[in-house]
Amino acid sequence: MDYQAVLDYIREAVEPAFGKGRVADYIPALASVPPRKFGMAIQLPDGRNFTTGDAAEPFSIQSISKLFVLQLVMSHLGDMVWTRVGKEPSGDRFNSMIKLEMEHGVPRNPFINPGALATLDLLMSLKGDTKQRLRDYLRYLSMNDTVQADPVVAQSEFEHAHLNRAMAHLMKGYDNIHMDVDELMETYCHQCAMTMSCVDLARAGLPLAMGGYSPLHEESVISTSQAKRINAVMLTCGTYDSVGSFAYRVGLPAKSGVGGGILAVVPGKMSICVWAPELDAFGNSYVGAAALEMFTSLTHTSIF
Amino acid sequence: MDYQAVLDYIREAVEPAFGKGRVADYIPALASVPPRKFGMAIQLPDGRNFTTGDAAEPFSIQSISKLFVLQLVMSHLGDMVWTRVGKEPSGDRFNSMIKLEMEHGVPRNPFINPGALATLDLLMSLKGDTKQRLRDYLRYLSMNDTVQADPVVAQSEFEHAHLNRAMAHLMKGYDNIHMDVDELMETYCHQCAMTMSCVDLARAGLPLAMGGYSPLHEESVISTSQAKRINAVMLTCGTYDSVGSFAYRVGLPAKSGVGGGILAVVPGKMSICVWAPELDAFGNSYVGAAALEMFTSLTHTSIF
Amino acid sequence: MDYQAVLDYIREAVEPAFGKGRVADYIPALASVPPRKFGMAIQLPDGRNFTTGDAAEPFSIQSISKLFVLQLVMSHLGDMVWTRVGKEPSGDRFNSMIKLEMEHGVPRNPFINPGALATLDLLMSLKGDTKQRLRDYLRYLSMNDTVQADPVVAQSEFEHAHLNRAMAHLMKGYDNIHMDVDELMETYCHQCAMTMSCVDLARAGLPLAMGGYSPLHEESVISTSQAKRINAVMLTCGTYDSVGSFAYRVGLPAKSGVGGGILAVVPGKMSICVWAPELDAFGNSYVGAAALEMFTSLTHTSIF
Amino acid sequence: MDYQAVLDYIREAVEPAFGKGRVADYIPALASVPPRKFGMAIQLPDGRNFTTGDAAEPFSIQSISKLFVLQLVMSHLGDMVWTRVGKEPSGDRFNSMIKLEMEHGVPRNPFINPGALATLDLLMSLKGDTKQRLRDYLRYLSMNDTVQADPVVAQSEFEHAHLNRAMAHLMKGYDNIHMDVDELMETYCHQCAMTMSCVDLARAGLPLAMGGYSPLHEESVISTSQAKRINAVMLTCGTYDSVGSFAYRVGLPAKSGVGGGILAVVPGKMSICVWAPELDAFGNSYVGAAALEMFTSLTHTSIF
Repeated sequence: MDYQAVLDYIREAVEPAFGKGRVADYIPALASVPPRKFGMAIQLPDGRNFTTGDAAEPFSIQSISKLFVLQLVMSHLGDMVWTRVGKEPSGDRFNSMIKLEMEHGVPRNPFINPGALATLDLLMSLKGDTKQRLRDYLRYLSMNDTVQADPVVAQSEFEHAHLNRAMAHLMKGYDNIHMDVDELMETYCHQCAMTMSCVDLARAGLPLAMGGYSPLHEESVISTSQAKRINAVMLTCGTYDSVGSFAYRVGLPAKSGVGGGILAVVPGKMSICVWAPELDAFGNSYVGAAALEMFTSLTHTSIF
Repeated sequence: MDYQAVLDYIREAVEPAFGKGRVADYIPALASVPPRKFGMAIQLPDGRNFTTGDAAEPFSIQSISKLFVLQLVMSHLGDMVWTRVGKEPSGDRFNSMIKLEMEHGVPRNPFINPGALATLDLLMSLKGDTKQRLRDYLRYLSMNDTVQADPVVAQSEFEHAHLNRAMAHLMKGYDNIHMDVDELMETYCHQCAMTMSCVDLARAGLPLAMGGYSPLHEESVISTSQAKRINAVMLTCGTYDSVGSFAYRVGLPAKSGVGGGILAVVPGKMSICVWAPELDAFGNSYVGAAALEMFTSLTHTSIF
Repeated sequence: MDYQAVLDYIREAVEPAFGKGRVADYIPALASVPPRKFGMAIQLPDGRNFTTGDAAEPFSIQSISKLFVLQLVMSHLGDMVWTRVGKEPSGDRFNSMIKLEMEHGVPRNPFINPGALATLDLLMSLKGDTKQRLRDYLRYLSMNDTVQADPVVAQSEFEHAHLNRAMAHLMKGYDNIHMDVDELMETYCHQCAMTMSCVDLARAGLPLAMGGYSPLHEESVISTSQAKRINAVMLTCGTYDSVGSFAYRVGLPAKSGVGGGILAVVPGKMSICVWAPELDAFGNSYVGAAALEMFTSLTHTSIF
Repeated sequence: MDYQAVLDYIREAVEPAFGKGRVADYIPALASVPPRKFGMAIQLPDGRNFTTGDAAEPFSIQSISKLFVLQLVMSHLGDMVWTRVGKEPSGDRFNSMIKLEMEHGVPRNPFINPGALATLDLLMSLKGDTKQRLRDYLRYLSMNDTVQADPVVAQSEFEHAHLNRAMAHLMKGYDNIHMDVDELMETYCHQCAMTMSCVDLARAGLPLAMGGYSPLHEESVISTSQAKRINAVMLTCGTYDSVGSFAYRVGLPAKSGVGGGILAVVPGKMSICVWAPELDAFGNSYVGAAALEMFTSLTHTSIF
């Protein structure tokens, strides 16, 4: 398969899809991203990677960070995470508090905001500086020592985090947040403000495609069973209230972020990251989803 | 892979799981099924099949029928079905009306009850006798001309269908049911009352594993794209409000029924049906899910 | 107090309020009512009544019938009605099924549709023809032997009763409807299709203002305690999801109908009925509520 | 009417009602209140008052404070308060966030917690120290210069205010809280921790019974129209998710608190306060409601 040709084809073919979504604008730092950015990167287990467009340009990973926080927590604490958060799709918007209240402060899954907060809260129970731990983990996975948070984005998120704070306090009311809420919010906003490129993210996601083993590091970063399970949670919960349509169209486990990135996994074969800032009504990259749909159609890599 | 040995192993290994679920008891005809029944069948594309236990004994397929009604509608009307029903997990119980009202009579997906009713309503818009059409389709797919509905179950379902009727009327209020509600209910209860064995269902499900092509009939029953998409809907919506846990544990597209059957698909490789009447709290076969979890662990066939 | 002058003043003063609401249009028979109709009638315990405008013209009483069905059931079966229906405001639209499902088929109060159905279902458990019993009761209370249902409206309601049917079946699923649903719906539509004038309704409502005693009949139609309690239910539940605003503005127990009528009670003093077909967003007569607000301001008859 | 005899009779008659409710236990300071306390006080416009039991003992007024904050805000800012909060019963528990989210951060009424927070937020927009302003207002209304907050209760509330904080942040996310959340919470907990006796509260509530005029101060504290409207809001929203039953049984505008107090108003005649710490399932004083029910039955003072 000539992946370079596939990526180059997709880059042209998605052109008509631009202008139909909207760049996230809830904080100024995200609203100012140029809407026409488009990058895509493939990472193969043999070390080769293929890229097109702005694949090397760092962007705000936002909710894609939830994937790595979950992976990091599971690598340390295993299934204990499921005592704090479920693994079912919520059927609601990512920031809805309705089910959270009806289900007594236990979030539906680790990829909606309250679930990500509970997961992070658990990570923070480990000794050490969580922000540094997470940064080091992303640097290690992406083999890029320049990965870091954008302090302007982090600060801006922190100032606009009213709904996330509301969720944290609601969960604290049900004893499902143990850390100080201010400290949790500050760490959470830092996590979301990490900037990475498509190349970085594709590399960081490869172990999930390879049963937890990283051929690039020549070591396992998580167990095979955990890798498969994280993929299952991605497929059923990774793309907000649009998981069914995403599975239907793309057919790959994936995690999206409102920065416009989507990281997808082809089990046994490769990881893929696409970035295009315009979002659909559910918060997923409009152009990015179209690009991934083309990719699995052209390469017959849907898991279904 | 010695599938016979795997099945025989599973049959013994699931023993401790019996007695932990409950046989469906909302109608007498289902409540009287012996709880310790257990059957499992694998259908390979080369024509071989493997079975264990009560795999040849017909049981009430119940909601597994929703899968074949969807497939039949899509084979006739393609994507038109998605104008009547969504393809997202609901996050609620299979018979909840809350989202149905909030979303103006458009059910979340074809596998919750209101979605199955809307799908059947669309099928009934085709010329001809829908009950006969569906029976003939199941006979064709399973290559078994004795497949039929159990009239006692159908009648009993019809008499206890208050909540389903409520949903049908609610959708009719939003103009998303076009047929007469009585006729729709009668056809729906007939559909759920079809009886098939694990062997029948595994055979009927094989085309979904093979891109829509039936090696047994040597013809396509649905397009490759449609087959993959139905699998995606199964994975995200096929096992009630437990799809996340099911994907996490089993890792296969599957459709369950309260008769205790689960039909699962290993894309590119095979179809599997398991039957064990005791249900978990979500309405899926407790022992059946455990058996499928063992199967994918032993055979490394999780799609993740 | 010169009530005639008050009514005449109000009739002129409400002029600017016309054209701001919308006549109910869910069935043709209601949609064709002239929007500019306006009538108002006061019934005093000494037998005097005062009227203005179209006060003698019969209109479709619609949900005002729920008040008299409740009164009739309580006169026969007393507090038994509260085993079938609550007496709390729902906080939702009159035809919402959400709380009904969450609260297992027990409607919040007798004035939302499912509560009216449960109340009528209980009335139908009495021996005899319920439609005739209700018609006779309204004729007796209004002292008008020409009171009857409009068969065109009743038939039209019956054909458009999808949501009400859905509620009835949902409640039957929870064993809170005992009658045949078709028969219940037919009786319910008949009840709503009764036509009465402002004069009729003011007379029929007088006992509720007088502790259950009808000075016009010189007998009690319901106990004092029951009369006060029905007034309490009217105040907290009688004007759809707008009870708080109505109490705030008007300050009287009242029951409205989508035909544009509102029957209000001034405890110890009088009953009042106003009719103006244009409805506000909640389903209450826009002009009628304005007229009642003027009335209590001018006459200092708010109960608060 | 011999009110002293009535009160003495009630004090004995409610004896069997003790032990059926539960003292609030969400903070230690409330949980330690002796459950058998019972006090009742009547304040007449002619200056006479009548008391029984522990009527002179200060207790934690809790949500009764919401009534006076609303009155104080309306006396300064009039109807502006209704731009921040509705006046409809919620149909949900006092601390539910579900409707608050569905209705975009606008609370249903000023007596559920989020509504009280929005009302207080508005009061805090006035120049000056809000805590002192409120304390002075309560001292003025009750004519008791020893009225103050219990600092232990205030501190304990502040530490357990997770759900209230969650609501405040949710509303801030919808721009319906303008103050700093920490400062708002601190002021809110102070407000709830005010301690007053039945005698104090009955005196403070008298103007609401007298069209806003305080015969004791010989001046109006709020306009007649505002007084009537506050009474209307009390009747439809003042006793948590039990307003319908309370109106049905007692028939008076009233505001309850989880400290076990209930302040009720007999328009034109008097104000009444009862205190008994054991609460029913909705958070209203179990014995207090029974006492008020007896009172209106014996004195024929139901407004219905």
